[in-house]
Amino acid sequence: MRTHLGSLRLAQLVQELSRLPGIGQKSATRIALHLLEGDAEAARALSEAILEMKAHVHPCRRCGAIAEEDECELCRDPRRDPHSLCVVGQPTDIFSMERAAVFRGRYHVLGGLLSPLEGVDPSDLRLAELELRVRAEAVREVVLALAGTVEGEATALFVARMLTGHPVSVTRLATGIPVGGDLEYVDEVTLERAFAGRRPLG
Amino acid sequence: MRTHLGSLRLAQLVQELSRLPGIGQKSATRIALHLLEGDAEAARALSEAILEMKAHVHPCRRCGAIAEEDECELCRDPRRDPHSLCVVGQPTDIFSMERAAVFRGRYHVLGGLLSPLEGVDPSDLRLAELELRVRAEAVREVVLALAGTVEGEATALFVARMLTGHPVSVTRLATGIPVGGDLEYVDEVTLERAFAGRRPLG
Repeated sequence: MRTHLGSLRLAQLVQELSRLPGIGQKSATRIALHLLEGDAEAARALSEAILEMKAHVHPCRRCGAIAEEDECELCRDPRRDPHSLCVVGQPTDIFSMERAAVFRGRYHVLGGLLSPLEGVDPSDLRLAELELRVRAEAVREVVLALAGTVEGEATALFVARMLTGHPVSVTRLATGIPVGGDLEYVDEVTLERAFAGRRPLG
Repeated sequence: MRTHLGSLRLAQLVQELSRLPGIGQKSATRIALHLLEGDAEAARALSEAILEMKAHVHPCRRCGAIAEEDECELCRDPRRDPHSLCVVGQPTDIFSMERAAVFRGRYHVLGGLLSPLEGVDPSDLRLAELELRVRAEAVREVVLALAGTVEGEATALFVARMLTGHPVSVTRLATGIPVGGDLEYVDEVTLERAFAGRRPLG
């Protein structure tokens, strides 16, 4: 943007803000002006929150989720079943699962999904760590909560094959029509899977 | 949001970000995770840009626009005509005027528009400063570039009345149909004004 902002420092802040996801030049300018007009305390709080987060938040040593200690809250929670593991692609997937509140075990974050096209191969993911945990933590159940994409599919198959020979049940989230979803808006592949996975009533 | 983020500091950053204009909880979370996953240098640059801007950017002592020095770039620019003043509501209005590149004088920022409903009265605006400047800087022309709203209207009338008796021409931006605008989408009041302000061709 060639807009005259009257201040190099304001322009610099606009530039930094516009690097954030979902923030264009216009939003960045609006946010920068909001910070300019607001009190110094609010700006300082934001600036500090960024540094604090960056300094103290890192992946959980055990599961790869977001943590402030060596291990994340969920890994340290004695009420969570250590013998049941839910495998997800990203730490954020844990948020979705926890919101649904259906799983009472622990998590394992792969840190991505297999994608030959994007050059993500097994060595890029926390797969060896998963196999180690399955053995060391006497895991009896592995639930694969991976995306319903080609990459999610490939990753699920890879994990299932990797865990063959371990005394563990490997399941995957069901594919089907979303609750409240109109058939009209469901794609054919999903419908095909939903049909194949149809279940008796009552 | 009750989402399990696994980190108080991450939650704190999400909260600070969601206070920014146009940023909801979802965008705030996405931005926070982007900063978490990005390198430390990017996060530090943003954090610093906020503090730098806050420490060094303030209103121009003369015109009220955004400045890093005592006076803003435009007030210090000797190529700008000091005897022609464009009166705007907010510093950001200057950006719009400069983008259009039609005005070669200087600016005066009122810091708002008169609004009895929102409790903004003349003493809240930089009106006395404007009258002082008109006299001290031997201003010959005042162009009111105020919003086409009731508040803009009221403010324009107030300024015009205030400057009665000063040897200065006071004009206001024309009201009319926007360039490229279809008549279909122009409201009646604008059309009425555009008709009243019709001009001979050629």
